[in-house]
Amino acid sequence: MINKTSIIKRIKLIQNYLCDNDLDGFIQPRADSYLGEYVPKSDARLEWISGFTGSAGVILVLRKKVILFVDSRYTIQAKHETKNTGIKIILSFKQSLEKYILKNIKNFTKIAFDPWLYSYSYIQNIKNIETKINSQFVPLKKNPIDYFWSINRNSPPNSPIKVHPLKYAGISSSIKIKKLSIYLKKLKAEAYIINQPDAIAWLLNIRGLDLKHTPIILTRAILFNNGNIYLFIDSTRINKNVSNHFKSIKIKILPEKNIVTEIKKISKEKNKILIDPNYVSYALIQDIKKNTLIETKCPIEHLKSIKNKTEIQGAISCHIKDGIALSKFLFWLHKYKTSLNSELLAANKIDNLRSTQENFISTSFETISGFASNGAIVHYRVTDKSNKKFKNNNLYLCDSGGQYLEGTTDVTRTVAIGKPTQNMKDHFTTVLKGHIALASAIFPYGTTGNDLDLLTRLPLWKEDMNYGHGTGHGVGSCLSVHEGPHRISKGSFIKLEPGMITSNEPGFYLTNKYGIRIENLMLVKKIKNKNNKNMLSFKTLTLAPIDVNLINYNLLNHEEINWLNSYHEKVLKKISNSLEKDNKNWLKNVCAPYLKS
Amino acid sequence: MINKTSIIKRIKLIQNYLCDNDLDGFIQPRADSYLGEYVPKSDARLEWISGFTGSAGVILVLRKKVILFVDSRYTIQAKHETKNTGIKIILSFKQSLEKYILKNIKNFTKIAFDPWLYSYSYIQNIKNIETKINSQFVPLKKNPIDYFWSINRNSPPNSPIKVHPLKYAGISSSIKIKKLSIYLKKLKAEAYIINQPDAIAWLLNIRGLDLKHTPIILTRAILFNNGNIYLFIDSTRINKNVSNHFKSIKIKILPEKNIVTEIKKISKEKNKILIDPNYVSYALIQDIKKNTLIETKCPIEHLKSIKNKTEIQGAISCHIKDGIALSKFLFWLHKYKTSLNSELLAANKIDNLRSTQENFISTSFETISGFASNGAIVHYRVTDKSNKKFKNNNLYLCDSGGQYLEGTTDVTRTVAIGKPTQNMKDHFTTVLKGHIALASAIFPYGTTGNDLDLLTRLPLWKEDMNYGHGTGHGVGSCLSVHEGPHRISKGSFIKLEPGMITSNEPGFYLTNKYGIRIENLMLVKKIKNKNNKNMLSFKTLTLAPIDVNLINYNLLNHEEINWLNSYHEKVLKKISNSLEKDNKNWLKNVCAPYLKS
Repeated sequence: MINKTSIIKRIKLIQNYLCDNDLDGFIQPRADSYLGEYVPKSDARLEWISGFTGSAGVILVLRKKVILFVDSRYTIQAKHETKNTGIKIILSFKQSLEKYILKNIKNFTKIAFDPWLYSYSYIQNIKNIETKINSQFVPLKKNPIDYFWSINRNSPPNSPIKVHPLKYAGISSSIKIKKLSIYLKKLKAEAYIINQPDAIAWLLNIRGLDLKHTPIILTRAILFNNGNIYLFIDSTRINKNVSNHFKSIKIKILPEKNIVTEIKKISKEKNKILIDPNYVSYALIQDIKKNTLIETKCPIEHLKSIKNKTEIQGAISCHIKDGIALSKFLFWLHKYKTSLNSELLAANKIDNLRSTQENFISTSFETISGFASNGAIVHYRVTDKSNKKFKNNNLYLCDSGGQYLEGTTDVTRTVAIGKPTQNMKDHFTTVLKGHIALASAIFPYGTTGNDLDLLTRLPLWKEDMNYGHGTGHGVGSCLSVHEGPHRISKGSFIKLEPGMITSNEPGFYLTNKYGIRIENLMLVKKIKNKNNKNMLSFKTLTLAPIDVNLINYNLLNHEEINWLNSYHEKVLKKISNSLEKDNKNWLKNVCAPYLKS
Repeated sequence: MINKTSIIKRIKLIQNYLCDNDLDGFIQPRADSYLGEYVPKSDARLEWISGFTGSAGVILVLRKKVILFVDSRYTIQAKHETKNTGIKIILSFKQSLEKYILKNIKNFTKIAFDPWLYSYSYIQNIKNIETKINSQFVPLKKNPIDYFWSINRNSPPNSPIKVHPLKYAGISSSIKIKKLSIYLKKLKAEAYIINQPDAIAWLLNIRGLDLKHTPIILTRAILFNNGNIYLFIDSTRINKNVSNHFKSIKIKILPEKNIVTEIKKISKEKNKILIDPNYVSYALIQDIKKNTLIETKCPIEHLKSIKNKTEIQGAISCHIKDGIALSKFLFWLHKYKTSLNSELLAANKIDNLRSTQENFISTSFETISGFASNGAIVHYRVTDKSNKKFKNNNLYLCDSGGQYLEGTTDVTRTVAIGKPTQNMKDHFTTVLKGHIALASAIFPYGTTGNDLDLLTRLPLWKEDMNYGHGTGHGVGSCLSVHEGPHRISKGSFIKLEPGMITSNEPGFYLTNKYGIRIENLMLVKKIKNKNNKNMLSFKTLTLAPIDVNLINYNLLNHEEINWLNSYHEKVLKKISNSLEKDNKNWLKNVCAPYLKS
């Protein structure tokens, strides 16, 4: 943790900068210029200025006041990390930054922002506030933090580009580009600005290690409707192998800093430029006339979400490897659960077991390893300080995943340590009922995540239970573990289509006691019917036993028991041959079918 | 059926009228000027001109061509009823009237319409076509059919107004008016035009017998924001009792024909007028400036849909009476099903049994009585010609309902005649699973019919079954059996609220073989929980045994069997004491709980 004196000094530096430059405030979000979920250390400006390390938040530095807006999962952490620095914490669901500004800022106030760190649509929205408060949001040429932050600043990620071979990608970069260039022509767009590194990774069949959990290169690109592509990256990161790979496409490598100039060039020729306003940095197009822009959903996002045959095969095979690691982990837990085990030890164990699998790249997110009350914290990350030792008669929740060349995994298992109470069993079984209801649903083409979200919740609602997060998210193929455009969640109106992958992760969290979540990844697939045409179902990809010690079979009906038995039969079949004798016997035992008496 | 020569003559009369008046076409829908579901005989203009008696359709009479647009349920009937008249039938899902006009009409064509028979929003929509086809839609002063139709024309409905006593209505008219006038003031509207007779019946606590199945008076009204109300009706229909009832409110009775003038008066004073564009006749406001109108959802519709305590009590008690009639009917079917019974006989039987119940007013719609393949026709109405005699080993579907002073019922039961096949049982049981899934759902406030529609369908989809109609509709309180604003249907985004009544009617239809539907009415009610706040559930109102001979218990899980057993227990408890010995014993038998071996 950064010491308090440093934080206070840094805030003072920024406040002096505001005075010197005739500005009244500055907003710094957690985001970097790629606006993605994960931010490299070198861009952790919010942490530098506030000490706050959470994954979402925004700070408003005024000349005499500093306010950090965080969501409810970070209440305690934010208070702790900013203690004695003078930073005020506001919970954004009580009052968002925008509402705070509307209420407290008026009359010729100038709030500065770094235009790289905000999407075009966000800035459009806050521009609407300007007249209401008779004030101004001012885009800066350089982020003021960057003037003062040099000591102890990591270098920006700089990993070499790696080719993602066709045997994993399934479709060549040139075919993908062709498809998109036809789309651009159809929309009469000259070019599309790609500000999302994972979209570029997919399009060019490249990967990298710029981020800890997502195997991508942080870069930007412009795709032209004639199939030309400009990639903005330091050319030293391209080795011979990558150069050869690029020979099949019409690519031009340009320095990162050139992108704004290149965009201006395109727009000068009166060409239309396609952007996704939610994903493009405001800095990229702040000088472009609005009537030059065609605003639409990112066309790559949808294409990328529908996995091709090779990617589907990859997803299946990496889930077998993941299942082997998980089965070893769960067996290890079973053997050692009551003796000197801890959240940290367990997290290390699953991460290590996964890392020994072939074609493993990295974890797909930081493992959530929560025992007892820590399991009830939905976004819990274990630290040396929070680390709980395992004790008998409680629950352990482990949410983890891996990046493999073949695909991306994400799985949660909840395990009884010692003897679970009847309540624990009933809660777990109810969550399992929800999980099965979604996993076994058959539904027509046109169905959305909004439609399906209540399937997992219905059994919980009947028992006066619920969970405060979405039911499922899309997952990339050796890309981001959280990927759009589809979700299984109230308010998600994207149609599910064959080839999409989604998680299925209902849960239940009893504050200060324990947390339960059962998460598998599932593939959307077509089914063939005689009468109802265009019907879809899910194929569960994840292969790991569900803790039968936590099941109250009286609460399960025969359809649910059938689902569980055939799931365990599949796990056993796919995994057991890769396990050592003891582990195999254990798996046989926990996967044995339940026969209702 | 009207003879063909008459139809041809009538069409000729209208075509001559078009020529004489420099018009090229005329559109006549099935609707009357109240735009409701049921049209009195005196307004059956579509039938007069075409012979077509279906409940929906529109005819386009051109100078040399006549086209009738009907939906798919009326394909056969429309062809039959218009045979040899020269009328061409087009299925509206293949080509709607609007699409036909867009494709075939151009260059200075004048299509006339009766502005009373179309809503404001519909005319707004077709006005948008005018420029595309360089033609004109011309509102007429008088419907041309009315010049020629006098012989054999019924008089317009003219039933005396009846007071709907407070012991059934629950809330006085003056309180309802007060609530609405506050709403009008809030919206800065001077007045609200009420073109829906059932909204007026609710607002003024009056009923009548102007329609066969809905106990209302066909009338219009204007409500002012000071609580004054103008009712446009022949004053001879108001007897002393009604006059007294009206004394508590500020009402003025005006001749029907005066409404347009009165609306003009209001608008002249630069007041704003509230309308529901989907429910108000175009004729009422065709001369009013658009900026005078405030367009919104009918405020009465929502208030009316939420039944008050008295109405809820009424719904419960009329369902007991309805259940007694149904139990007698089902027992009668059981006794006589194989001997000389027929669809017509059965329809008469249930109608008669219902009519002997206390406070019975009328059936709430024309009873659907379909044996075997006729049961598979969703909107089937038995005629002398279509009437099927019952034979062994098939299914009989009966959808019927009653209007009582206490409330409105609507129920469907499907019964095995003779020995059902395994397929029939499996199909029936799957539909029952769907019915139970919805009936037993618990869900949060904010849930819509769109969210719940898939609950009944999921079990069907799993068996490659489905049904081509909505899952549920709102039901009035001694008012229309189909009532908005809520529905349980894909695309219905109205939130369900405590006090709303909805049907639950999944089905399955095997063309040329048999039809299955299980329909109960349900009340939305709050439930009290410890953790989840604002949760809702359904209380089933309908009380009639579900044919256990059609159930394959192997397909039901224990929760479903529990639901069925407790439903039958309730039916028995509420109904059996009102039955004669044999009937009672039969009911005891069919309602006996199933105990899974």
